[in-house]
Amino acid sequence: MIPADPDALAQAALGGDRRALARILTAVENRTPAAEAALRILYPKAGRAHLVGITGPPGSGKSTLVSAIIANAREAGRAVGVVAVAPSSPITGGALLGDRVRMQSYAGDSSVFIRSMAARGHAGGLAPTSTAAAAVLDACGFDLVLLETVGTGQSEVEVAAAADTTVVLEAPEMGDEVQAIKAGLLEVADIVVVNKGDRPGAQRTASQLRAMLVGSGRVGRREGSNDRPRPKEPEVLVTTATTGDGVPELMAALARHRQGRPSGADDPTRRARAAAQVWAILGDRVRAELEGGSRVATTEAVIREVAEHRLDPFGAADRLLATLRTGGQ
Amino acid sequence: MIPADPDALAQAALGGDRRALARILTAVENRTPAAEAALRILYPKAGRAHLVGITGPPGSGKSTLVSAIIANAREAGRAVGVVAVAPSSPITGGALLGDRVRMQSYAGDSSVFIRSMAARGHAGGLAPTSTAAAAVLDACGFDLVLLETVGTGQSEVEVAAAADTTVVLEAPEMGDEVQAIKAGLLEVADIVVVNKGDRPGAQRTASQLRAMLVGSGRVGRREGSNDRPRPKEPEVLVTTATTGDGVPELMAALARHRQGRPSGADDPTRRARAAAQVWAILGDRVRAELEGGSRVATTEAVIREVAEHRLDPFGAADRLLATLRTGGQ
Repeated sequence: MIPADPDALAQAALGGDRRALARILTAVENRTPAAEAALRILYPKAGRAHLVGITGPPGSGKSTLVSAIIANAREAGRAVGVVAVAPSSPITGGALLGDRVRMQSYAGDSSVFIRSMAARGHAGGLAPTSTAAAAVLDACGFDLVLLETVGTGQSEVEVAAAADTTVVLEAPEMGDEVQAIKAGLLEVADIVVVNKGDRPGAQRTASQLRAMLVGSGRVGRREGSNDRPRPKEPEVLVTTATTGDGVPELMAALARHRQGRPSGADDPTRRARAAAQVWAILGDRVRAELEGGSRVATTEAVIREVAEHRLDPFGAADRLLATLRTGGQ
Repeated sequence: MIPADPDALAQAALGGDRRALARILTAVENRTPAAEAALRILYPKAGRAHLVGITGPPGSGKSTLVSAIIANAREAGRAVGVVAVAPSSPITGGALLGDRVRMQSYAGDSSVFIRSMAARGHAGGLAPTSTAAAAVLDACGFDLVLLETVGTGQSEVEVAAAADTTVVLEAPEMGDEVQAIKAGLLEVADIVVVNKGDRPGAQRTASQLRAMLVGSGRVGRREGSNDRPRPKEPEVLVTTATTGDGVPELMAALARHRQGRPSGADDPTRRARAAAQVWAILGDRVRAELEGGSRVATTEAVIREVAEHRLDPFGAADRLLATLRTGGQ
C-alpha cells in the first residue's frame, strides 16, 4: 500500500519506497497540493546530489549517452536518478518518449530511477518543476541526478538553470536554423560533447567548437532569472555513447566541474536556482490570492479591461498590487 | 531625429515614424523602463490587428511562407508587421537569423515591418515580450501581425499564447524525437500547414494529419496560463510557399478562423493573453519590491536559506509574501 497522506508518502519515499517516490514526482509534475506538502519535508533533505543537465538537438544521441553515464556511475557505486523532460502528447497530456522502455532495462536495479515528464506550458516555465523533481530524487538518496531534455529552445535554457553542470550534445549540421539553435545552446554549456565520435569529422567538429568557444567564458551573461555565471570556457569532449568510448573522460570532466564550484549558497548557480524557485512559488501564491476569495471580481474586471485595451497591463498590475496590500485574509 | 523621451517616441511611432517604432521594439525586447512608458501610451491604441503565430520545426519553410503571406496581404492592401523570435547569439546576445536580409527586400515598402527578437531566458517566458511587441505593431497600424518562431519546444507554446490564430508548419519526418515534438506542436495549432506541397507525399501527410486530428478539438486543454480553448479541430492545408500555391487558401483559412472567434474580451484567447501579461508584470513588480529598498536584506537572507536547504521554497515564498504586506514604501 502506498500511503495517500503526503507526509507519510514523503517518509515512505525517504525510506526507499520507489512507488511512493513515483507518486510524489507525479504530484510535482501536476503541481497538486500534495507536491507542496511532500516537498516541504523532502527539500531540507536535499542538497547533496550532483545535478547534471543533458541537452542537445534531436538526433544527437542523448538517450544513449544517458544510458552510458548510468552504466559508468553504477560501476562506481553511485545511485542515479533521471528526469527526462519531453514534449507532451496532444491526446494524453503525458510525455511521449520511450522512457518506459528504458525504465524496464533497469527494473532490477533500485539504484536507478528514470522518470519522464511532459514539458507543459506552465507560467514560470520548466525550471521550477525540474528543480523540484531533482530535489525529490536528491532527498531520496540519488547522488547523481540527470536532467535530460529534448528540443532546441527556451526549454533547455530553463532546464540548464536547474542543473549544477550542463552538458550540451552536438548533432550533425543541418542548416542555418540548426546552427543558430546550436549557438544558443552553447551559451548554457559547461561541457560540450561531440557524440557519435566514430563518425568521420567528429574530431574536426570538436576542434572547431573549441576555436569558437575561446574567450566565451569572459562574455557577459544575459539578463534575466536564468543567468548563470560561467567562470571559464566549456570543455569540449568527444564520446561514442554506443561503445562507451570517451564516457569515463566525460565522468571525470563532470567531477572536475563540480569540484571547481563554490560550496553551498556561495555557488551563484545554486543561489539563482533557489531564487527562481521562490519567485515561481511566490507568483503562484500572489495569483491564487487575487483569483480567489473576495478579490476575484476585481481581478476579473481588471483583466477584462486589459483584454478590451481600455487599460494597459502595467496599470492593471499596479491596481492588483494595491488590492493585494489592502484587506488580505 | 528620433525623440529620446518615451512619450514623444510613442507619438512619433503612432505618426508613422519607423525608426521610433524600431526603438520602442528594442526597449520592449530589453525590458527597459522606456518600454513601459511607451506601452502605456500604445497599448490602448491596439486591439485591431489579427495576430497570427507561425511556428514549426527547422526546415519546414517558415521564412518562405511568411514572405508568401506578406506578398498576399500586401496585394490586399494590408499592412504587415512581423516579429521573428529566434535563438540568440552567445556573443552578441542578438538574434541570429537572417532577418536583416529579409528586411532589406521590403525596404521601399513602409507597410511591411520585420523585426527579429532574441529568445532570451527571461522569467515569465517569451509570451509577454511577444505580446508587447505585437501590441506595438498593432497600435502603429499594422493590421496583420505575424509572430514567427523557430524551434521545437516551450517557446512555440508561449508564442502561440500571444496569437489569435496559430499556424503550425509540418516538416519532413526525422525520427522519433521529431515526431514527438511535432505532436507537441499540433497541440497549439489552429491551422496546420503541410508546406513543400510539391514534394511527393505531401498530400498523403496532410491526410494522415487530418486522421490524427479527428476529435482533437474535443480534448481538454492542458492546465496553466497558456491554456487556449480550441473549439474545433484544426484545418489542415497544403502550401508550396516557394511558388505561392495554396497561400490564398491559407489566407482564407486565417480569415475564417478569426471570424469564428468571439469579439473583444469574450474571446477567451484574448482574455488569457491579457491575464498572462498582467501576471508577468505583477511578478516583475513584486520581485522589484522585494529586491529593492529596505526589503533586500531579508530577501537575500531567505534565498540563502533555500540555497542551503535550511528552508523549503514554499516557506520562503510565504515569508516574503508577509514581508510584502507589511511596511511598503
